[in-house]
Amino acid sequence: MSKNKSDLIMVASSEQDANMYYATHFLVPDDFVYFQIRGKSYALMSDLEVDRARKEAAVDEVVSISDLAKLFSKKENRRPGYIELINWFAQSKKASSFLAPENFPLFYADSLRKLGLKIAVKNDPFFEERTIKTPQEVKAVETAIRHVETAFGELVAFLKKTKIRSRRVYAGSQMVTSENLRARLNARLLELDCVGPRAIIACGKHAVDPHDEGSGPIEPNQSIIFDIFPRHMKSRYHADFSRTLVKGKASPQLKAMYAAVHEGQEIGFKLIKPGVDASTVHGAIQKNFERLGFKTGNINGRMQGFFHGTGHGLGLDVHEQPRVGRANDILKPGHVVTVEPGLYYEGLGGVRLEDVVVVTKTGCRNLTRFPRFLEIR
Amino acid sequence: MSKNKSDLIMVASSEQDANMYYATHFLVPDDFVYFQIRGKSYALMSDLEVDRARKEAAVDEVVSISDLAKLFSKKENRRPGYIELINWFAQSKKASSFLAPENFPLFYADSLRKLGLKIAVKNDPFFEERTIKTPQEVKAVETAIRHVETAFGELVAFLKKTKIRSRRVYAGSQMVTSENLRARLNARLLELDCVGPRAIIACGKHAVDPHDEGSGPIEPNQSIIFDIFPRHMKSRYHADFSRTLVKGKASPQLKAMYAAVHEGQEIGFKLIKPGVDASTVHGAIQKNFERLGFKTGNINGRMQGFFHGTGHGLGLDVHEQPRVGRANDILKPGHVVTVEPGLYYEGLGGVRLEDVVVVTKTGCRNLTRFPRFLEIR
Repeated sequence: MSKNKSDLIMVASSEQDANMYYATHFLVPDDFVYFQIRGKSYALMSDLEVDRARKEAAVDEVVSISDLAKLFSKKENRRPGYIELINWFAQSKKASSFLAPENFPLFYADSLRKLGLKIAVKNDPFFEERTIKTPQEVKAVETAIRHVETAFGELVAFLKKTKIRSRRVYAGSQMVTSENLRARLNARLLELDCVGPRAIIACGKHAVDPHDEGSGPIEPNQSIIFDIFPRHMKSRYHADFSRTLVKGKASPQLKAMYAAVHEGQEIGFKLIKPGVDASTVHGAIQKNFERLGFKTGNINGRMQGFFHGTGHGLGLDVHEQPRVGRANDILKPGHVVTVEPGLYYEGLGGVRLEDVVVVTKTGCRNLTRFPRFLEIR
Repeated sequence: MSKNKSDLIMVASSEQDANMYYATHFLVPDDFVYFQIRGKSYALMSDLEVDRARKEAAVDEVVSISDLAKLFSKKENRRPGYIELINWFAQSKKASSFLAPENFPLFYADSLRKLGLKIAVKNDPFFEERTIKTPQEVKAVETAIRHVETAFGELVAFLKKTKIRSRRVYAGSQMVTSENLRARLNARLLELDCVGPRAIIACGKHAVDPHDEGSGPIEPNQSIIFDIFPRHMKSRYHADFSRTLVKGKASPQLKAMYAAVHEGQEIGFKLIKPGVDASTVHGAIQKNFERLGFKTGNINGRMQGFFHGTGHGLGLDVHEQPRVGRANDILKPGHVVTVEPGLYYEGLGGVRLEDVVVVTKTGCRNLTRFPRFLEIR
C-alpha cells in the first residue's frame, strides 16, 4: 500500500516510537497526533511543543492544538475535548478513513471510531520504506557498530591484561565481574555518544540463558557472551553486536560449539540475498547444528540448543522488520539484519556470534568488522 | 475498579511499558502477553524467555507458548496462529471479557475481538495503585534524586571554577558548551547507575523553549535551565530535577522572573495536600504570575509566559498520573508529583525550578534537597 493511496494516523511519542520518529524526525517525550492525508503530513502540537515543532519537525504542516480549539469554540460555541478536536481536524480535511500502525493505542481507536472515523490496522512494517535502508541509514548503523567495536576492543585489551587467580579473574587487586565490565563498557560507549545500558555480559551459567544480562564474577575457562546494542544518540540508529570469549582455556566442547556457531554465521552470510525467504536461512543454520550433533529442545526441563531466531532487522529499533526466523519474510536489497546464531547448553555454557549485514543487489555485505576469536589468555 | 472485579489483558514490552513492568517486575525487550483472570496473573512466554521468566517474573504462572501450541495441535490437529493461541488460552480459563490499558495495541484488540473476546479500555491509571507510591517506591525516587543532586552539585562546582572571557565561558582553554556540560553530567550519572541522556542544558535563547535540549556555547549573564530526569537502572524509578543558573550577573528582569518562579513553587508546596484538585494548584500559580505582571499567551507569534503544566506524577515513567495542570486530578497520600513552574520570554530567557514532592496525610514532603540560587560567579 503506497503512502499516497491511504490516509494514515498515528498517536505516539517520537522518543518511544520509531515510526513516529521516522515520520517526523522530531523528538517529543509525550504522545502526539500525526496525520498523512492525500500525501500531506500534519503534526498536532501542544503549546509546549508547537514552536520547536515548526522549526524542527519534518512534516508539511504543524498544527497548534490551541489554535484549533479556538477555531472550534468560535464555530461551535463550546470548548472541545481532545478526541473531538482530532476528529474535527480530520473532517476539516475531508478525511474519514485511516490506516494505523499495529501498536496504535486502543483508547484513541475506540474513541475516534465512536465519532465516526474509520481506522484499520496496517500490519508491520507500517512504513515499508523503513525496512529498506538508504545509504545514509546504512552509514548510521555502520557508525554505531564502529563505536561499539571501539569500546569492545578496549574491553578485550583490558581482559587480556587481567590475571587468573583461584578460579576468579583479577585486574590488579580488583575482581572482574559482569557488573564492573558493563560499567566500563557503558562509560566508554557514552563518550562515543552511544547509550544502551543493558548490554549483556554473561559468563558461565548466566550465558546459558540468552537474555540473562549477566551478574557476578567472571570465571576463567568459561564462555562469556557479550551482546551490545546501544543507540547512537546523534542518529538514533542502533548497533547490535555479539562476541563470545573465554578468559583462559576453552574446553573441547566449547570449542566445538564455537566452531558450529561460526559455521552457522557463514551459512547465513552465504544464503542472504534478495528474493530469499529468510526462514530458509534460519532453517539451514538449524539443520547444520543438528547435523553437527547440537540438538535443540526441552532438555531436563529447560530450553537448550538453538532456540531463538537467526536475526532481525536493525535500525531505529533494535528489533524491527524483517525477521530472520520462522516467519516467511522475503529479503530485499537495503534490508539490514543481524546474523546471530547461538548454542546454549547447561553445564557447557552459551556461545553467540552476531554480525550485521546489509542485503545488496547480489548478496549481502557485512557491516561488522571485529574479528571472531574465542580464547584470550 | 479493583483488581479482582475485572479480568485484565496487556500486550507490551516491559522494557518499554511501565504498566507491564509494574505487573511483572520482569524485563523483556519484546512484546508479550499478560493476563489477570479472577485475580491470578499469567505471562505467556516464548522459548527464549520462558526459563528466565519462571525464575524472575512476579506473576502467578508463566505459560510456555510452545507448550500451549503443542496442546492446541494435539486437540485441534493443526498448528495455531499466535492470536488464536492467545484467545484459546483465555477460553481455557473461561474468561472472555477484559479491560486493557489505553495504549493496548490496536492490532491485538481488533484480532482478538474478531475471535470473540471482549476488550474494553480502562482509562489511565490502569493500575490505580501505581499512582500511590509505597514507602519503597518513594525511597527509590528519592535515591534517584540524590544521585542527580550529587552529579548536579559537581557540575555547579565545575561551573564556579570557569572564567568569563569575551562573552563566553571557559574551563581553562576549553569553551564551555551545552554539549560538553551534558557529556560531563551524563558520565557522572552513569557512574551512579542513572541513565537519561537527553538532559536539558539550555542557555539564553534556547532556554526560552522549555523542551529545547540546548546546544552551543554557554553565555555569561544569561539564564541556563538544567532539567535532569534519568532512570535509576537498579530500581527503574526516575528522578526529575530542574534548576536555573546564571554564570555571572543576572539582569533585574531575570531576578524578578526567578523570584516569581520560586514563589510559584512555594505556592505549590503549600497547596498540595490530600483531597485538593490539582488544577487549583496550577491555577493559583498561574494567577500569581499574572498578579506579578508575568503574562502568558501568544506574544509576537510564539508562546511565552507559563505555558506548561505545573507538574506530573513521577515513578516508573517520567510523566505519569496524576497531572498538576488543567485536568481535575484529585491528590491523594502517596502521590509523587513534580512542582515545576517556569517562565519563558523572548529576549529575557527562561527560568524553571523543579522539585518533587510526595503527598502525605496532611500536606506534602519535599523529596528534593538541592538549594535554589540563581547566580554563580
